[in-house]
Amino acid sequence: MARMKIFAISGSLRAASHNTALLHAAARVAPANIVIELYRDLGKLPPFNPDLEEDDPPAVARLREKLIEADAVLIASPEYAHGVSGVLKNALDWMVSSEAFVNKPVALLNASPRAVHAQAALKETLTVMSALVIEKSSITLPILGSGLSEELIVANFEISIALTEALRVLHAEVQRLVGKVGV
Amino acid sequence: MARMKIFAISGSLRAASHNTALLHAAARVAPANIVIELYRDLGKLPPFNPDLEEDDPPAVARLREKLIEADAVLIASPEYAHGVSGVLKNALDWMVSSEAFVNKPVALLNASPRAVHAQAALKETLTVMSALVIEKSSITLPILGSGLSEELIVANFEISIALTEALRVLHAEVQRLVGKVGV
Repeated sequence: MARMKIFAISGSLRAASHNTALLHAAARVAPANIVIELYRDLGKLPPFNPDLEEDDPPAVARLREKLIEADAVLIASPEYAHGVSGVLKNALDWMVSSEAFVNKPVALLNASPRAVHAQAALKETLTVMSALVIEKSSITLPILGSGLSEELIVANFEISIALTEALRVLHAEVQRLVGKVGV
Repeated sequence: MARMKIFAISGSLRAASHNTALLHAAARVAPANIVIELYRDLGKLPPFNPDLEEDDPPAVARLREKLIEADAVLIASPEYAHGVSGVLKNALDWMVSSEAFVNKPVALLNASPRAVHAQAALKETLTVMSALVIEKSSITLPILGSGLSEELIVANFEISIALTEALRVLHAEVQRLVGKVGV
């Protein structure tokens, strides 16, 4: 695999979201053999309704395609009231009945050391959806409360090094898994 | 308290939802001193965005008012991929910054004995939002997989007795708590 395509999803719709900033920063500090595309339509997904699955709403179909064509997925979600953000879980609910996450390597970036519930719940949900959560690339970084913007994350030596390393490991794991699972 | 007002929320938008059927059945077998109103606008809530909280979208304001004026809240949610449904969590996310759930007695009906993750996550989230989760009224009933409709739930002796008893206990607990917390 020359270049690895990563599809990145922020679980927050806030314009100044720390999680979105973290993913933007990840795209900038990524090794040269990784391309990161950020999902921008989380807020356009309809509320999940099993009755509408046969209709395959356009925004749902596009998300599924993006996930399927990606070599790996990077997720950064805020924790709201000790849970995964509803908007992110809504997106995952739409994907449950498809193959979008099956055998898909996923790394979970956590922007807050205190947010242990959402990270654990996301891992549980993605695992039951047959995703391959890559532990070594699922790191926690002290972004929330630090006031770090995308620029400051990139400029922060320790954080940007940790991000780059998580992505390097993800690339290696994807190559290993692609061989292993025969995708 | 002569009549207790319960606001009921189903976590599923599916027309034939077992959870919605369970709440309809609860309304029918409730003791005479309880009135249950079912929330019908879960699918009309916008995706949660902290940037829009100041605008107070109309559907969000109406939900908050309904919760505040209720003596207690009854929630029945499906479990999707070992998690709370995104649409229900989205509604809770909108309420986090308000007083809607503070000291509010809440009972969680679980329509599936196998759905342990969503029930636990809901309890965690509501507790951190300062709701009073009433354990004795938060019962699990074997609805999912049984094919029981609203009519059949009402007609099922064991289930309807369990529902009525859960609501009777909820009424008693609310009266006790209202005295205790001085609402």
